[in-house]
Amino acid sequence: MKDCVFCKIVKGEISAEKIYDDKNVYAFLDMGPVNPGHTLVIPKEHYKIMAETPDNILARVFVVAKKLMKVIKKTMKADFVAVSVVGVDVPHFHVHLVPRYFNDGMANFWPHKKYRDGEIEKVGEKIRKGFG
Amino acid sequence: MKDCVFCKIVKGEISAEKIYDDKNVYAFLDMGPVNPGHTLVIPKEHYKIMAETPDNILARVFVVAKKLMKVIKKTMKADFVAVSVVGVDVPHFHVHLVPRYFNDGMANFWPHKKYRDGEIEKVGEKIRKGFG
Repeated sequence: MKDCVFCKIVKGEISAEKIYDDKNVYAFLDMGPVNPGHTLVIPKEHYKIMAETPDNILARVFVVAKKLMKVIKKTMKADFVAVSVVGVDVPHFHVHLVPRYFNDGMANFWPHKKYRDGEIEKVGEKIRKGFG
Repeated sequence: MKDCVFCKIVKGEISAEKIYDDKNVYAFLDMGPVNPGHTLVIPKEHYKIMAETPDNILARVFVVAKKLMKVIKKTMKADFVAVSVVGVDVPHFHVHLVPRYFNDGMANFWPHKKYRDGEIEKVGEKIRKGFG
């Protein structure tokens, strides 16, 4: 898409530290990393969000993400690599791969809450009814 | 796997609020949700982490996650649905789908850092050398 930063990176119009490149998928280092080695994996074609990305392209992106997370873990000596899709920042679907360390001082996840008695069943029913 | 909580959920030996079920993939509500409707999508077969999950199964899990995130966004009236794989909690690969709200008071992401001059190129080279 014309004004998309990630599309410009794929076309080479904006420079980026490229990690991976194939027919459908491109990966490069996030310039403002959570930890060094933080990588973004994107489809070369422009899809705004994960929910609008065709299944076959989506599958390719995550299969590449899996391949890259192993390389990032090894080369960056990470304790684990977190995979995250937010979808409210740059409007070109991208998967964050973040090398994490047990001592990096960051939370692994958001705080957990509790359901009230009977609430989980109602929420489950509401979601199941949303199909189709 | 014998002592795996998620395998027991798939087999029905532990009850869970099921959201989705097909040949390869199962999804259910997280009992300690970040927000109500927080869903876990898992392969029925036991794979410890994302990096050890076969590509075809991995693809199926994320394609189902995509389908479910749309239903969860709609039914839970979420502003967006965050996708997260951590890999250091329950050792059965699972994708978190977390309904998020702009006013839920939680961060969208970890803090970003900056690379020192010349550092990003070195990190890129280190990761690229890690292939193969």
